[in-house]
Amino acid sequence: MQPVQIFDDQDAIVTDALAGHLTRDHGEDLALLDGFPHIKVVVRGDPEDDKVAVISGGGAGHEPSHVGWVADGLLKAAVCGDVFASPSVDAVLAGILAVTGDAGCLLVVKNYTGDRLNFGLAAERAKTLGVKVAMVVVSDDIALPAADQPRGLAGTVLVHKVAGYHAAKGADLDTVVARASEVAGAVRSMSLSLATCDLPGQPARSYDAQAELGLGIHGEPGVEKVTVEGAQQAAALLVEPLLERLAADGVSDDTRLAVLVNNTGSTNPMEMDILTRAVLGSALGERTGLVIGPAPVMTSLNMYGFSLSVLPLLPGVEDALSEPVTAKAWPDVSVPRQPTFRPLSEEVTAWQFSASSDAGREALVRDVCTALVEAESDLNALDAKVGDGDTGTTFAGAARALLKAADEPSLPMADPAQLSLAVGRVLASAMGGSSGVLLSILLTTTGTRLEQGDPLPDALRAGADAVIEYGGAQVGQRTMLDAVVPAIDALAGGGSMDDAAAAARRGADDTRHVESTTVGRSSYLASDALTGVVDPGASAVATIVEAAAAART
Amino acid sequence: MQPVQIFDDQDAIVTDALAGHLTRDHGEDLALLDGFPHIKVVVRGDPEDDKVAVISGGGAGHEPSHVGWVADGLLKAAVCGDVFASPSVDAVLAGILAVTGDAGCLLVVKNYTGDRLNFGLAAERAKTLGVKVAMVVVSDDIALPAADQPRGLAGTVLVHKVAGYHAAKGADLDTVVARASEVAGAVRSMSLSLATCDLPGQPARSYDAQAELGLGIHGEPGVEKVTVEGAQQAAALLVEPLLERLAADGVSDDTRLAVLVNNTGSTNPMEMDILTRAVLGSALGERTGLVIGPAPVMTSLNMYGFSLSVLPLLPGVEDALSEPVTAKAWPDVSVPRQPTFRPLSEEVTAWQFSASSDAGREALVRDVCTALVEAESDLNALDAKVGDGDTGTTFAGAARALLKAADEPSLPMADPAQLSLAVGRVLASAMGGSSGVLLSILLTTTGTRLEQGDPLPDALRAGADAVIEYGGAQVGQRTMLDAVVPAIDALAGGGSMDDAAAAARRGADDTRHVESTTVGRSSYLASDALTGVVDPGASAVATIVEAAAAART
Repeated sequence: MQPVQIFDDQDAIVTDALAGHLTRDHGEDLALLDGFPHIKVVVRGDPEDDKVAVISGGGAGHEPSHVGWVADGLLKAAVCGDVFASPSVDAVLAGILAVTGDAGCLLVVKNYTGDRLNFGLAAERAKTLGVKVAMVVVSDDIALPAADQPRGLAGTVLVHKVAGYHAAKGADLDTVVARASEVAGAVRSMSLSLATCDLPGQPARSYDAQAELGLGIHGEPGVEKVTVEGAQQAAALLVEPLLERLAADGVSDDTRLAVLVNNTGSTNPMEMDILTRAVLGSALGERTGLVIGPAPVMTSLNMYGFSLSVLPLLPGVEDALSEPVTAKAWPDVSVPRQPTFRPLSEEVTAWQFSASSDAGREALVRDVCTALVEAESDLNALDAKVGDGDTGTTFAGAARALLKAADEPSLPMADPAQLSLAVGRVLASAMGGSSGVLLSILLTTTGTRLEQGDPLPDALRAGADAVIEYGGAQVGQRTMLDAVVPAIDALAGGGSMDDAAAAARRGADDTRHVESTTVGRSSYLASDALTGVVDPGASAVATIVEAAAAART
Repeated sequence: MQPVQIFDDQDAIVTDALAGHLTRDHGEDLALLDGFPHIKVVVRGDPEDDKVAVISGGGAGHEPSHVGWVADGLLKAAVCGDVFASPSVDAVLAGILAVTGDAGCLLVVKNYTGDRLNFGLAAERAKTLGVKVAMVVVSDDIALPAADQPRGLAGTVLVHKVAGYHAAKGADLDTVVARASEVAGAVRSMSLSLATCDLPGQPARSYDAQAELGLGIHGEPGVEKVTVEGAQQAAALLVEPLLERLAADGVSDDTRLAVLVNNTGSTNPMEMDILTRAVLGSALGERTGLVIGPAPVMTSLNMYGFSLSVLPLLPGVEDALSEPVTAKAWPDVSVPRQPTFRPLSEEVTAWQFSASSDAGREALVRDVCTALVEAESDLNALDAKVGDGDTGTTFAGAARALLKAADEPSLPMADPAQLSLAVGRVLASAMGGSSGVLLSILLTTTGTRLEQGDPLPDALRAGADAVIEYGGAQVGQRTMLDAVVPAIDALAGGGSMDDAAAAARRGADDTRHVESTTVGRSSYLASDALTGVVDPGASAVATIVEAAAAART
């Protein structure tokens, strides 16, 4: 991990981040309290409304907690401290006074001494001013079963959601406190990390184990050193103790659960999806009625890990958790299900061509393929000078596949348009590298145009244009186009196949004078390596056109 | 950075992640195409509807691109390859055929050879099957001004959004292509990274510079090595070339811009907010009409960096970008503004007490404070055995502040309730550590109860209960409570202040027998360090009660 280092003033990280957060209109009427930067409080809405204000906060470094939850149906204020440091009593009191009306307020506090004391004293001071204040402490961590004071982890956001839901519905303070207390009393969490977080500007603490189990949210060591061997095993490291704890709590096996999958910071979205699948495939999955996340909800800066929180779906909890909110950071709340599958169109893999015979065209195909097989070592030698020496093998491999298709027989020899399409299909699967796809594009487009009635030169021109469009090269850049386009030009000008063959060879030969290019294999080489060497792809195309011309005569 | 390592099967990372993504109901009717895992395509909605299908995709590792955008108003299908590898032609064709009706489809492709060729050939094959297909290639990177084929970066998602908007409105394919092409032709992006991404299971490439400028999205080196000195300077490294490029493009200075602030993977949300503020404070900010993000939209696994994309707000673009979508990962689209401030309640900082005199009570306060000042070195010596040796100084400092307040005079000596509240206020600001907050809680709650008419023992009991609630300790755990509660018990039982003082001292002395505890300073020590040592906080409280009793007599 790299320490957090994109900031201008280490002492102002939180204030600058909050100011940054509020340089955009989130549609929530967000404001900072004056007293900023010492008092770092984000508030929303009309402070005079008649609804209970749910307020939370704590040290920064857990984004989107808590500023991300200042939104309708969640928090009315977030009180921020510095990174991993509790806000001051004055800051909490300022938050309370800014958003609390006659209905009173609920403080949702994670169980850390600093937060408990500072929010607690602020609550008592607010009471001296006649404000109705209640406080619910969240201590959802199960990592230390004997702890008198379990830490508050990601489960805290479920308390925000349920409390915010009831407050928004107009419930009175006693009701909001009761619902919040039920969730705080029932939610259980545990976390796992493969790399700790790095405090701004400070070098990282190294783990002396691959992973740690049972961490708080401030980068402190976990209670156990573990090894992560896979997603399912990692999920099990949390699922098993959580299920044991639910049993010890007296939660019956048929109680459905909400499961919050929290990204602690820098875990990759794919890993989070893989983990979520592992969790839902575990014994916990069978009991999961609602999945929340995966998402970063309670992070520890850039910690590489995840946590699981489980909450029995007590009466009313599912509705409260599922109610949509506008807060952008609020995670997906969804019902688990098996992935659904839609049938694949048969046309993707079907060989939609009917074999037919045409002696002349079959001879042409066979002669061209034979010429490519015979040119294999020469083309490889040419490519060895400017590439990885396999152009001959690539073209010869495709030629052998076409000869096999002619033998089966499976090629629609009687129909030039269909034949062009069919050869394109064979090349797409039998010819590796970009050249296989490019030739397939050329032949597929040509075939389509022939189907539409275009004369061969026009159809080929459309094919070459598709190669230019999709491949990104132009004539003169040491690619197959340097043989393809002159040959088409010759045909389009009324020339014979022999004229086309001569034009293709001339074009290929001229590539030896192209000393630099920005596309294709030659773009990786210096000009002195290129000078005097014919592009092997262009040479292969010339060989094709020459063999075709010879077969015609 | 730690390499991505939470997975079960390295070859199945993308398929397991997609399966995980679809184990939840996103409300978008998402499905995987059969042919999974070789064909990794996520589709939505009714394939037979009459709207243009916008389809995108590419290698995995850029989440939430592209699966996160399969949603109403964005994409109808995302075609995924392996990590940083283009999907196959068959996969793209399968995606096209699964979601394209008579209205046809638009493929939005980032400008990488593999994607261009595989999407291109799939498009040509789809045309042979009678499907209307168009393709728009996005090449928004400006890092290499001379590049024939600039790479596709985060600006691609703006093409998705505008194309998806018009498709959802029922526009025909030509219109969707025209709108998408306008955006693809006008959007410009550049990125900066402080640490590269780590491919699954592979050790990280180390930077030989602190940061790199002008990167693609596949972990390749940037075009320039740079040093990040701060957020404003980091923002300027991207803003300046972007503005130069817009000028070179002929965009006039008064054209308003959309600015996308993209997190490339593991950059902290606070850093992203600080960066966004820096961008909006730069010369680019003056021209910004719409901010998109900050959010991870086009990531490179866990790359620590960010990119900026700028798009002139062509007619209609602002509406298309601003239209809400249900896709959870879609970033905030907002109008920049200055943070708004709400006034701080004066009651937070106001000294709401009126000085008054009462000779007896003033003597009591002074005597207690003098006793604490005199006990400073003894209490420090006691604390040195079990803590950091500053308990005496902490209490003496508070005592000196109270003596100063008495001298001013500012304390409401004539009113016991107000005096308790006022001393609580002084302690909250003048007495450091947890003990200052705890004593302030005790006195604030006591004062509130006295105001309400409670007798002193009851008021003190409520204060002690608040200390227990917020502080989390119980009697018998080597804290101040071991002196406080016996003293209250004595008073509540009808005892005198002398009885209370004796009880407090007895309680303090008894803490020497408490050999272990789970709270407070002593929880960090082994029992042999505690045995025989009186808790210094409890001793200080006993000193206070003794001095108060002596002053009364």
